[in-house]
Amino acid sequence: MKILPKLVKGMRDYGAVELYKRNHILSVIQSVYACYGFAPLETPALEYRATLTGKYGEEGEQLVFNVLKSGNFLEGMDPALVSTTAKEIRKYITDKGLRYDLTVPLARYIAANQHQLLFPFRRYQIQPVWRADRPQKGRYREFLQCDADIIGSTSLVCEAEMLQLIYDVFTRLRIRDAQVKVSHRGILSAVSGAQEGSEAEKTFCMVVDKMEKVGFDAVSAELSGKGFSTQAIASFASLAQLQGTNVERLTQLQTVIGGTERGAKALALLTECIKLVQALGAPDDCFVLEPTLARGLAYYTGLVMEATIVGAQVGSVGGGGRYDKLGTLFGGAEWSGIGFSFGIDRLYDVMECQGLFDAVVGHTTEVLLLNMDVQTEAPLLLTLSQLRAAGFKAEMYPERAKLKKQFAYADKKKIPFVLILGEEELAANAYGLKHMETSRQKQYTWSELCMVLRKMLNETK
Amino acid sequence: MKILPKLVKGMRDYGAVELYKRNHILSVIQSVYACYGFAPLETPALEYRATLTGKYGEEGEQLVFNVLKSGNFLEGMDPALVSTTAKEIRKYITDKGLRYDLTVPLARYIAANQHQLLFPFRRYQIQPVWRADRPQKGRYREFLQCDADIIGSTSLVCEAEMLQLIYDVFTRLRIRDAQVKVSHRGILSAVSGAQEGSEAEKTFCMVVDKMEKVGFDAVSAELSGKGFSTQAIASFASLAQLQGTNVERLTQLQTVIGGTERGAKALALLTECIKLVQALGAPDDCFVLEPTLARGLAYYTGLVMEATIVGAQVGSVGGGGRYDKLGTLFGGAEWSGIGFSFGIDRLYDVMECQGLFDAVVGHTTEVLLLNMDVQTEAPLLLTLSQLRAAGFKAEMYPERAKLKKQFAYADKKKIPFVLILGEEELAANAYGLKHMETSRQKQYTWSELCMVLRKMLNETK
Repeated sequence: MKILPKLVKGMRDYGAVELYKRNHILSVIQSVYACYGFAPLETPALEYRATLTGKYGEEGEQLVFNVLKSGNFLEGMDPALVSTTAKEIRKYITDKGLRYDLTVPLARYIAANQHQLLFPFRRYQIQPVWRADRPQKGRYREFLQCDADIIGSTSLVCEAEMLQLIYDVFTRLRIRDAQVKVSHRGILSAVSGAQEGSEAEKTFCMVVDKMEKVGFDAVSAELSGKGFSTQAIASFASLAQLQGTNVERLTQLQTVIGGTERGAKALALLTECIKLVQALGAPDDCFVLEPTLARGLAYYTGLVMEATIVGAQVGSVGGGGRYDKLGTLFGGAEWSGIGFSFGIDRLYDVMECQGLFDAVVGHTTEVLLLNMDVQTEAPLLLTLSQLRAAGFKAEMYPERAKLKKQFAYADKKKIPFVLILGEEELAANAYGLKHMETSRQKQYTWSELCMVLRKMLNETK
Repeated sequence: MKILPKLVKGMRDYGAVELYKRNHILSVIQSVYACYGFAPLETPALEYRATLTGKYGEEGEQLVFNVLKSGNFLEGMDPALVSTTAKEIRKYITDKGLRYDLTVPLARYIAANQHQLLFPFRRYQIQPVWRADRPQKGRYREFLQCDADIIGSTSLVCEAEMLQLIYDVFTRLRIRDAQVKVSHRGILSAVSGAQEGSEAEKTFCMVVDKMEKVGFDAVSAELSGKGFSTQAIASFASLAQLQGTNVERLTQLQTVIGGTERGAKALALLTECIKLVQALGAPDDCFVLEPTLARGLAYYTGLVMEATIVGAQVGSVGGGGRYDKLGTLFGGAEWSGIGFSFGIDRLYDVMECQGLFDAVVGHTTEVLLLNMDVQTEAPLLLTLSQLRAAGFKAEMYPERAKLKKQFAYADKKKIPFVLILGEEELAANAYGLKHMETSRQKQYTWSELCMVLRKMLNETK
C-alpha cells in the first residue's frame, strides 16, 4: 500500500537552515529571560479537557485538538447520545486535548504546586502550542510560544522590568523599527462610561480593538450603533489624536479622563511606570503610550502591551499585560501577574526582511573529507576523528565515489571546505585544503590546518 | 466551578532544576551530533493516521493518541457504524495522531522532499514523542527522543562513525560503565536455520530478545517448544558463551556460523567494522560484540546496537541499527540507513546516580537586590539593569517587604548572592554584597563587584 507523504495541513517541517535561524532568536530571548531572573518551565503537550476549556469556555473549545480516549472510548456511553450532536458526544469520547496557549498550563502548574513554589514566581516557557484553526497564510496550527510571567507581585517594578525586557530583546536581536505600545485597561474603561467589569465595557474594548483594521470612522459608527454616548465617542476620538512624548501624552490624557476615578488611577499608574522605566536606565522612547490599545483577551486588568514593527505588515510580534485572576480557574487564590509573549514566527519573518540572519547562520558541515583510495582510508578516518575532536563539524563522503560527485555534494550542501588526503599529501605529511568559494587549494601541516580552518570559518560565519 | 489542577497521567512538568540538567545532556548530544555533520530537523507533533499506522500497523495503532476531527466529526458517517466497534468508528472520526517515534516522521519527510534533499542525508532530531501506553514507573506517555540517522549510504564507514559517536557522547557526558553491545542481524538469522525474512526467523529473534529478562534456560525451552532444531538451540547456546575481545569473539563465531553464507557475510561485515572503528582511533573496547542481541524492532536488517550501563538497573539507554526499507512505506526508493536513538530519561537517571550533575547545575537567579528604601529605589533599579547588562542573572525583590522575608526568599530560591544598596552604601559609593552560603558581607566598588561575582559564581557552579 502506498501512502502519500503528506504533512498535516497548517503545520510545518523545519529544516536545518530554518532551525539555525529560529534557534538564534530563541537563544537570544532565552538569555534575556535568564538575565531577568526567569526560570524555565516545561509542561506536557496534553492537558485534561476540563483544564483547557475552563479559561475561554465554548469559545476556546473550537481551538482545541481533542484526543480520543484510549482503548474502547465507547465504553459506558449512553447509546441514546448517538442521536445527539457531535459536541455532546465529544464530551464523552475525549478527555484530553493539546494545549492552545501556555497560560492555561501555567495556571494549572501554579495551582498544583502553590505550596512548594516561591512567590513572586518568575517563569519563562518556550514550547509549541496547537490550534484547530482553519489554516491561512501566516497562521499555523502548530507554532512556538515564548512566554515570560511574574506571578504573585503587584509591584509596578514588574511592569517596568517587563517593558525593559522587551526593549532588550529587540535590541539584542538588532531588530529595527520595533515599537511597544502601552496602555492601561482603566483608560478605555473610563472613556466608555460603562460600569467597570460590565458587558458594555467589554463590548467597547472589543469594538475599539478593531481600530487598526477598520479605522476610526468605522469604530465610531459601531460604537454609536451599540448605544455608546456621544461623549464616550468624543473622548475616544481624542485618545486617537494624542501626540508627542509619553509625558506629553499623559498630560493630554489628564484633560480627557483625569476627572474620573478610574481614569485618574490609570494615569497615576502609567506615570509611575514611566518613572520606573527611566530609573532602570531604559530610553524614554522604549515604549509609546497608545491609549486606544485594547488587546483582545478579556482577562487583562491593568497595563496592556503590544509590540509591532513600524512599516512591516506582520501584525503584532508580541503582546501581554497585567492580569489578576490567574488562579480562580482552579478555585485558588487570585494571583496577580504580568506576562509577555513573543511571536516567534513573525519575528523570524521580520528578521529575514531586515537581513538580520546573514551573520548568524552556521554551517551544518564545515569540512568534507574526500573518500579517494583504499590505501589512504585509515589515515583519512583518523583525520576525521581528529577534526571532530578539535571541534570542527566534519564528515567524510562515505562512498568512494567519483571526485566530481563528491565535490558536487560539498557544493550543494554549502560545505565551505574540502579536505584532500591522497597519496601525495600523505607522502608530504600534509593536508590539502580547498576553499570552495574561492576554489583556492593549498597544503598545510596539521597545526596550520586547524588554525586556518578556525580563522576562515569565523570569517565566513 | 472549581477544576482540579491535574497533570495528565503519565506526563510530567519540568521545573527549572530538572531542565538545567536535562538541557545539559541535550546540549552535549547536540554538539556531538553537529561535529559529526548531522543537521537538525524538526517535524510537527501531529501526523496523519495513514502515515502513523503504516509502519507498525495494528500493533502501533494502540500506541497512538488519536485526534478527533475538527468541527462536526460525525458528518458523513454512516449511522449504521454506531453499532460496530470503537476501532471501526475511530477510523471515521479521527484523521490525525501524535507521533510515537521520530522514524515515521523522518520517512515521511524524506519521501516528501526526496528530490530536494542531498544524499547521504545526515539528520538529527530531538523532540518529544507520545505513547498511549499504560503509565508505569519509569515509563512515560510523553518523553524526548534524540535520534541521529544517515540515510542513503550503505558504506560501513557509517556504522563505524555511529559507534564512535555513541562512545563520544558517553565520554563527553562523563558517564561511567557504559557498554555498547553490537551484533549483526545475519548472526541470529544464520543460527536460527530458518529462511531469511521468514516468520520463523522473526519468531526466533523475538524469543531470543527476552534473554536478559528470563535467562538462557527459558529461552532455550521456548525455542524448542516453537519447533526450532536442537542444532539451532546448541548454536545459540554457544553464542551466549562467547568470551574475550571482539576479535577473539569473531574467531569463536567463525566456528559456529562461518560455514553458512549469511553467517560468513555477517562476520565479514563485523570484521570490517572493527577495522574501521580502529582506524577512526576509537578504543577497541568502545563496543562489545554480543551476538545474542536481537533488538525488538523487525525493521533492522544489518548491524544492531544497544547501549546499557553495566550494573545499573535501567535497561537500555539507547539503541539503533541499520535498516533497508525506510522509504517503502511511501512507495519510494528503498533507502538504506543507519540510526541511533538515546533515551534521555534513562541517561538522566544514570547521571543523577553517578553524581554527574553536581558540576553543571546553574542558578536561576545569581543576585537578589534587596528592596529597602524609597530614596534608594532609583539607584537600585539602575544597578539592576547594569548587572543584567554585565551578563548576571539578577532580580530585585519587587515589594518593599521586611528584610527577613527578602532574605528568606533568596535562601529558599538558592540565590547565592544578595546585594544591599542602602543609604550607607550609596553615601560610600559602594555596593554591599552578602554571600548567602558563608553569610559573609562586604562592600565593593562597581568594578570590584563584577569581578567578585564572576569569580565566585564560577566557583560555586
